[in-house]
Amino acid sequence: MTSIRTYLLSFGLLLSGFLAQATASSARPDEGMYPLSELKKLDLKALGLRLSADELFKPGGNSLLNALVQISGCTGSFVSPDGLIITNHHCAFSAVAAASSVANDYIKNGFLARKREEEIIAKGLTVKITLTYEDVSARVLNEQLRKTSDPAARLAMIRQNMKQVEREENKKNPGLECEVSEMFPGKVYVVFRYQTIQDIRMVYVPQRTIGEFGGESDNWVWPRHTGDFSFVRAYVSKDGKSAPYSADNVPFKPSRFLKINTGGVKENDAAFILGYPGRTFRHYPASFLRYQNEQFMPLTVELYDWAIANMKALGAENKALDIAYASRIKSLANVTKNYKGKLQGMKRIGLIQRKEEEEAVLTQWLATQPQTDPGWKTALPELNQVYNDMSATAARDFWLSQFPTFSPAFSRAVNFRAILKSLPDDKNLRTKIADSLSQVYAKSIGTDNYSMDWEKRAFELFCNKILSLPTEWIPASLQAAKTDLSKWQAKLYKQSKFFNAITFKNWLMEEKGDAFNLKKDLLFSLADEYLAINERLNAERNRRNGRITSLMPALLDAKMAFKPTTFLPDANSTLRFTHGRIRAYQPADGQTHLPFTHLSGMLEKEDGSEDFEVLPELKTLFNNRDFGSWAVKEGKDVPLAFLYNMDTTGGNSGSPVMNADGDLIGLNYDRAFTATINDYAWNESYSRSIGCDIRFILWTIEKVAKAPHLLQELGVK
Amino acid sequence: MTSIRTYLLSFGLLLSGFLAQATASSARPDEGMYPLSELKKLDLKALGLRLSADELFKPGGNSLLNALVQISGCTGSFVSPDGLIITNHHCAFSAVAAASSVANDYIKNGFLARKREEEIIAKGLTVKITLTYEDVSARVLNEQLRKTSDPAARLAMIRQNMKQVEREENKKNPGLECEVSEMFPGKVYVVFRYQTIQDIRMVYVPQRTIGEFGGESDNWVWPRHTGDFSFVRAYVSKDGKSAPYSADNVPFKPSRFLKINTGGVKENDAAFILGYPGRTFRHYPASFLRYQNEQFMPLTVELYDWAIANMKALGAENKALDIAYASRIKSLANVTKNYKGKLQGMKRIGLIQRKEEEEAVLTQWLATQPQTDPGWKTALPELNQVYNDMSATAARDFWLSQFPTFSPAFSRAVNFRAILKSLPDDKNLRTKIADSLSQVYAKSIGTDNYSMDWEKRAFELFCNKILSLPTEWIPASLQAAKTDLSKWQAKLYKQSKFFNAITFKNWLMEEKGDAFNLKKDLLFSLADEYLAINERLNAERNRRNGRITSLMPALLDAKMAFKPTTFLPDANSTLRFTHGRIRAYQPADGQTHLPFTHLSGMLEKEDGSEDFEVLPELKTLFNNRDFGSWAVKEGKDVPLAFLYNMDTTGGNSGSPVMNADGDLIGLNYDRAFTATINDYAWNESYSRSIGCDIRFILWTIEKVAKAPHLLQELGVK
Repeated sequence: MTSIRTYLLSFGLLLSGFLAQATASSARPDEGMYPLSELKKLDLKALGLRLSADELFKPGGNSLLNALVQISGCTGSFVSPDGLIITNHHCAFSAVAAASSVANDYIKNGFLARKREEEIIAKGLTVKITLTYEDVSARVLNEQLRKTSDPAARLAMIRQNMKQVEREENKKNPGLECEVSEMFPGKVYVVFRYQTIQDIRMVYVPQRTIGEFGGESDNWVWPRHTGDFSFVRAYVSKDGKSAPYSADNVPFKPSRFLKINTGGVKENDAAFILGYPGRTFRHYPASFLRYQNEQFMPLTVELYDWAIANMKALGAENKALDIAYASRIKSLANVTKNYKGKLQGMKRIGLIQRKEEEEAVLTQWLATQPQTDPGWKTALPELNQVYNDMSATAARDFWLSQFPTFSPAFSRAVNFRAILKSLPDDKNLRTKIADSLSQVYAKSIGTDNYSMDWEKRAFELFCNKILSLPTEWIPASLQAAKTDLSKWQAKLYKQSKFFNAITFKNWLMEEKGDAFNLKKDLLFSLADEYLAINERLNAERNRRNGRITSLMPALLDAKMAFKPTTFLPDANSTLRFTHGRIRAYQPADGQTHLPFTHLSGMLEKEDGSEDFEVLPELKTLFNNRDFGSWAVKEGKDVPLAFLYNMDTTGGNSGSPVMNADGDLIGLNYDRAFTATINDYAWNESYSRSIGCDIRFILWTIEKVAKAPHLLQELGVK
Repeated sequence: MTSIRTYLLSFGLLLSGFLAQATASSARPDEGMYPLSELKKLDLKALGLRLSADELFKPGGNSLLNALVQISGCTGSFVSPDGLIITNHHCAFSAVAAASSVANDYIKNGFLARKREEEIIAKGLTVKITLTYEDVSARVLNEQLRKTSDPAARLAMIRQNMKQVEREENKKNPGLECEVSEMFPGKVYVVFRYQTIQDIRMVYVPQRTIGEFGGESDNWVWPRHTGDFSFVRAYVSKDGKSAPYSADNVPFKPSRFLKINTGGVKENDAAFILGYPGRTFRHYPASFLRYQNEQFMPLTVELYDWAIANMKALGAENKALDIAYASRIKSLANVTKNYKGKLQGMKRIGLIQRKEEEEAVLTQWLATQPQTDPGWKTALPELNQVYNDMSATAARDFWLSQFPTFSPAFSRAVNFRAILKSLPDDKNLRTKIADSLSQVYAKSIGTDNYSMDWEKRAFELFCNKILSLPTEWIPASLQAAKTDLSKWQAKLYKQSKFFNAITFKNWLMEEKGDAFNLKKDLLFSLADEYLAINERLNAERNRRNGRITSLMPALLDAKMAFKPTTFLPDANSTLRFTHGRIRAYQPADGQTHLPFTHLSGMLEKEDGSEDFEVLPELKTLFNNRDFGSWAVKEGKDVPLAFLYNMDTTGGNSGSPVMNADGDLIGLNYDRAFTATINDYAWNESYSRSIGCDIRFILWTIEKVAKAPHLLQELGVK
């Protein structure tokens, strides 16, 4: 238990300072995804909550936290004594897809088990419940590490030590799953011990037109009308242990489940969220943001915009390609939308400038502190050096790494070359495994979306981008072709086996292990040269990352010493608490986003496109004003989604949104466009997250699914 | 004067009923673009205005109305005793473009005359001032017309009579320009007598980045940040008469000019607009709206979306085409945006259903009125028949009429064939004019944007669409090619002279009149067949329009007898008054559009694209908070644009927006997306128009143009 105390202690100083601030600025919530260790110190009453700290979190006892689960990268919560879990539709999507067939299209039609026996396996979904945690920094940052100075070696050793602690912990705690999480890079490491449940079953999944309404078009968008929810159930063996699916398994009995609030919420109500946010980057210096802002994101936007335009152009001429590219275009557009939101947000709030000003003040202060650790003074300039280096080589790193991602043929050649490299030197052994390796690889080759036009466009772009790099980073055969690039390309397209996925796959299936004797293929040669360059790049990347991990602790120590505020660890997929208010915002000059949307707005969005298809039943129910007890606006509408200023990020999907009493009022599922900056900073003006109102979920269960048994299990009516 | 009285009388009954309603619903303005004849009857005080009726409009006297001008399809107003006129940037655009050269790019850099002598001619701009008007219905709908029953002949005769009255009026009123306007089709005709001014000069035009900020991207969009204004000056001969440009001309002295309000406006302030709205369709029956809603607009959207996608696809492969297509894509997108807005708006407010319900009630009432004109009873069903016929043939009319518009080659062939048809039968005469006609036509042929790929795509689409029509409407050679369309097309592309604009033009220049002997060209044959079909289509169209004009008066009479409300004439480019409030609105569930935008919002929109380029001076001024006396938000911003619920449409561009005292508070320039339905109906929830705040204009004059002389002339400071 000493180590837990140490861990808590390490936050003691800063937290008290932090909370003093929070109280001073009264109702305005401060940036923060609080880890478990900090919860006890929050003044819940001052935040507008009516829970006691014990009700929220009682280590080792039974508190609200026990109702929370991590479910395959998302968050869920127990909502019945029989292991019923509520989470997002998009979190259960892959399981629903796996269970679907042409005859039973659960994606399209939804799924509802009218009794327990009808619940079917939710393939791929597993559930984890946080039981205990302990600071293991001393075991990760051990004696041996302290003796190691090479940054890349240090980084590798930290990763190794984390794994080692996990192994030890798993051994000590049979039946539990232990994970070591990095709370502050190179500084604080905590083991979390989870109970896992493997047998998860589908209970109620609404139709895609409800659960995915708005599709990618409405991603990062408010006003939003997605009914992004679904219900699954956790099953365990009869003796209460985690077990694979079995007909004999029984519903899991959680030590705690959430109570449903049926009274509704209104603007400015206090609320909070528990969940497993994935990743944020708030402690990194301004030079890191500059790298992201000026290099990485613009390069990504440039490439993705190029790819989207070219996929659309090819699709306009060829219906099959149009269909094949549709989902890729959507996912590329989703990233560029997110990055454009971040770029806009960083500019608007002057984030880089603000960080640079803070860093200048810190540097000045450090200069007046002769007694401090000399590492504190050098940490920031050295980190800046690393990020400036990364900025300087960003184009090189980006175009080289993205080439195989955008040329399927080059990707095949690179994979093929890598497999060949992985073969053992021993000739006998080599022959033995080559046959089966080649067949496994052959099977992995997709034969969809073959378009030589696309390959040519991709080669045109990437060859030119790579040829503009310093010579040492240009593959030799490409460099040699520089004087007559198009001639070389024409030859390449004609000669290489890799361009046509179908013929390449067939050739591989026939030749088996002998295929690895391929030598004179031009694309194979390029891949060979590329892999050698890539090795140098990887070594450099590891060195840089190692240096960052070595330098970050000193920077954080210096910052803490200077100004003991806002030092909550970045999100890292461990359980966090965030609080705030139901609140409107002004996304831009001249407009306000209101905190609630309604069923009527969903119907208004219907425009004949797939993303905005409305389930006919919803229209009938709306026209009949069949709203049950869930109506608002004088009986004219049903609430659908709502906005709040809490601090969330990816991984918070499916998180319960709770009111001041800790009762469930909604289900978190996205952020507004302006809140894409949450990864770098929380901002009261722009950070708004989006949840599905529990009243819409209950109305859907009652009127669309017509499932009174489910309402009853939820304790409603 | 009798006729004026008659005209006023015809509105008497309904107006009193109308105003009773308006008073009952207090501050909510009613739908309406009031013509001059109705102004006297408005209760200005009840509308929140502090003007007397005489101050607004005193027939024959000096009132606010005298400050209004129509300026080349837009509206403008005098703002100084020396003939200074304020209007929109986009209204003066063509004149600014004509005055620009590479050396003096006034479009890009703006134009400012620092003294009178520097004012330069605004080519193509003319100004009209409404002096008097008179009901001439009896002269248009004369004895001879009453004896004519054929609808097409009646329509032609009405047009003829209108021209005849104009000729007579122009003769009687030397120096004035008299125009007869149709107030209610087939029912009320009014002559408007205008003073015209020909010598218009540019005074101040801001840079394109101000006057066109947002470009087509922001068209029909709120929040808006366009500084869409410019100043011109009217000049007349020394004796005060309209005269062409001459150095001896002197500034026109208007009998009235508007006073500038420098105090600013706030939400819910009463306001009004005077202007020349172009065209609305509010008295037409539901079947007309169905035709628009279910046929014409969806067909247009289908074709334009197809064209945009294909232009983009071709542009993606060919930079020259990309540039060539850019403006066409923008103008097509502008129309589809407008139509999509209308389709959305009609659905939202249930416009067609509402009209149908009203018509059902009217029909029921007419059935109980045996003594009424039998024509009243048959008018609506017969109109419905016409519009149902138009709906039934909409696809035919649409695809046939659009073919030449989207195939430049076919357009050349059709024009060429039409010219040939227009040649006189007399062979001698024919030879005499053929040479010069061919040369004039040759010169008119543009040689830009030649793309055989585009032609092929257009032929593919249109041939297939036309082949799906009833046989009698399919050109014979196309019909014959049906069994092997692609073979015929391939032959056509190869054989016809019309596809390559450049070679066709050269051939025409060489051959001169002999070119008209062209016979065996396949596209020429198609054009020949097409023109014959087109003649039949035109005859049908004239018959239908004639019937509509014959039937509308009876429908209106019946409506007036049933329920004497809201019978203001549709907009027809004559002077109108509309009133309302500065007001926010909810464009969709979950969001509000606030009534003001600001300079800061313009800066936030900058994203590297041409449409959102910000003038560097504006950034400097903003960063220095150099706002003069025009600051709002505690000195942090300058107001830019504002929203109001008035009833405007195209032609209201440049209209002065005036406060309760009749002082200028802004310049109308667009409508919000949801207000595109104004053409069919005004709606309090969605009809919002957009104006440039006069404070932004004054700030720009002071700080960007640095033109104190202009402020002084405007009576400011």
